[in-house]
Amino acid sequence: MSKELLEYVSRVARAVDSIIMESVRGPTRKLYDAALHYVKAGGKRLRPAVVHLFGEGLGCSSTEALSYAAAAVEVLHTYTLIHDDIMDKDTVRRGVPTVHTVWGIDMAILAGDLLYAYSFHLIAKTTEKGLEPWQTVSMLSSLTEASIELAEGQAMDMEFENRDDVSIEEYLEMIRKKTAALFEACAAIGAIAARAAPEVIEKARSVMRYAGIAFQIKDDILGITVATEKLGKPRYSDIREGKKTLPIIIALRRASSEDREHLLKVLKKELNSETDIERAARIIERTGAIEESERMARDYASKALELLEGIDFVNDDRKRMLRELIEFIVSRGY
Amino acid sequence: MSKELLEYVSRVARAVDSIIMESVRGPTRKLYDAALHYVKAGGKRLRPAVVHLFGEGLGCSSTEALSYAAAAVEVLHTYTLIHDDIMDKDTVRRGVPTVHTVWGIDMAILAGDLLYAYSFHLIAKTTEKGLEPWQTVSMLSSLTEASIELAEGQAMDMEFENRDDVSIEEYLEMIRKKTAALFEACAAIGAIAARAAPEVIEKARSVMRYAGIAFQIKDDILGITVATEKLGKPRYSDIREGKKTLPIIIALRRASSEDREHLLKVLKKELNSETDIERAARIIERTGAIEESERMARDYASKALELLEGIDFVNDDRKRMLRELIEFIVSRGY
Repeated sequence: MSKELLEYVSRVARAVDSIIMESVRGPTRKLYDAALHYVKAGGKRLRPAVVHLFGEGLGCSSTEALSYAAAAVEVLHTYTLIHDDIMDKDTVRRGVPTVHTVWGIDMAILAGDLLYAYSFHLIAKTTEKGLEPWQTVSMLSSLTEASIELAEGQAMDMEFENRDDVSIEEYLEMIRKKTAALFEACAAIGAIAARAAPEVIEKARSVMRYAGIAFQIKDDILGITVATEKLGKPRYSDIREGKKTLPIIIALRRASSEDREHLLKVLKKELNSETDIERAARIIERTGAIEESERMARDYASKALELLEGIDFVNDDRKRMLRELIEFIVSRGY
Repeated sequence: MSKELLEYVSRVARAVDSIIMESVRGPTRKLYDAALHYVKAGGKRLRPAVVHLFGEGLGCSSTEALSYAAAAVEVLHTYTLIHDDIMDKDTVRRGVPTVHTVWGIDMAILAGDLLYAYSFHLIAKTTEKGLEPWQTVSMLSSLTEASIELAEGQAMDMEFENRDDVSIEEYLEMIRKKTAALFEACAAIGAIAARAAPEVIEKARSVMRYAGIAFQIKDDILGITVATEKLGKPRYSDIREGKKTLPIIIALRRASSEDREHLLKVLKKELNSETDIERAARIIERTGAIEESERMARDYASKALELLEGIDFVNDDRKRMLRELIEFIVSRGY
């Protein structure tokens, strides 16, 4: 990331974090500690940056309202991380133990539920922060639609764990819901705050749909290629959990029958030693699945950039930063 | 319940159920089956009735918008049941196996999350069903505040399981959040739909705060006194789970030291045979805790009725039915 974009993202992150820390407060200490665990552990806050970039770029002058909406998105994202970690039995996230590992599953469920409530609470606040009520309602619709898709995407992801024959099309549909839908909502929310016309909102959505798909493909790649310390979570957890990520789907198609058999046994947890898992990762790499996935991620990012060019921005600085952000999504090392 | 009130509640239930069944639909079959499990299993739909009674009583003419808001509340209530059942390890609800018992904990978490999203989605819809956007935003604020309190109340309830010294004041604060907050929101939402003045909304809230507390106390009593078949869930589950309900708190204060010791051992699950649990129930009854709890429930209901008299209704039929509904809350046999 350029210094300019890095500073912008950090500024948005600070604004959003301060809203979250001031808003998400209450008397039941343990519950709130659990709820704020990942917020305090860091994270890039890319989604809030997308809300701000589209919002400011398309002419919204109320930065505070934008930050409240961006905080709502980040809080919603955080709740999904807490609940997904329970379902995926993940033990480490953002370099810290997962919420259910520290506080137990019951408290983790409740901490997620609390954040969900705060997310919509923050959206409701955008009216008193200067937006028109219809803008708040419109943002609410975008966010609830994304929330529904998030749950559907997670259900598909879980179902795919028990299947060997997941197609690339099914995978793409799953990540569109599980990951891209919230990025789409970020674009829509920013555009709504800027009172953009329906067709502009739709175009903004499409940009982030493609960028969101690229983001998830890249995430799946990094889960295989990047070391644990850099990743903030254990390497190969997708392989261990039998997830059908793009590199894994491609590898299952391309591998020799012997390699395919080994890979399937690891994905089905019939083999689970570190050596077995390492060998599965080497099989995936050997098929060229990483390169093919990289190529697809870049294609989706290119499509996003192309669509972005078709939107007239009031503020071209923001458009330039959005362009760079989308490029970062596929070029990032972790 | 009088025939008039029964018919009214049934009519509202039908309207709300049909909105829920039409709205909560999607491609991931298992997830939607799990989410709709309790909706299909029945339930009284008291909360939707409260939304409608305040809404129509205070002069809202858009019945459809009211039903959408009422459906949002019912869906929110259903999500809390699914997640609470996981945390409380309950196996039966409304006469059917609990969601996590049928579909597993992961799918139950996700089904709850999906309903949460639909709840706010239905609130967002009230604008297109005829309300002004500011009314929708105001309803959203009420519902998110209640959601936050629901999670806080559930956290208190869970924490109380590990304590012997929970006071009546702490119990009342817990059920105000866990149960009364959503009834309060029902009153507020109805009043907002009717464009009631802020002070009327506040009064309506107070009515249902007291009625909601009475409702929960009565629920706690019925959990001890009513047979499993009528209850739709196993009798004595509060005792089994070590819950600090009002009858239990009172009994712990009044019981002889020998009885208290037995009761505590059962609550701490050190003793858990059916005979031990039956004996604990007899101890609670012997202390007069049931009668004292009944008295308190009636006091709260009386306070609710008194406050209700202080509100001017446009439609006095609805006021009369609300009065009867509040009386039903404390007189019901299950």
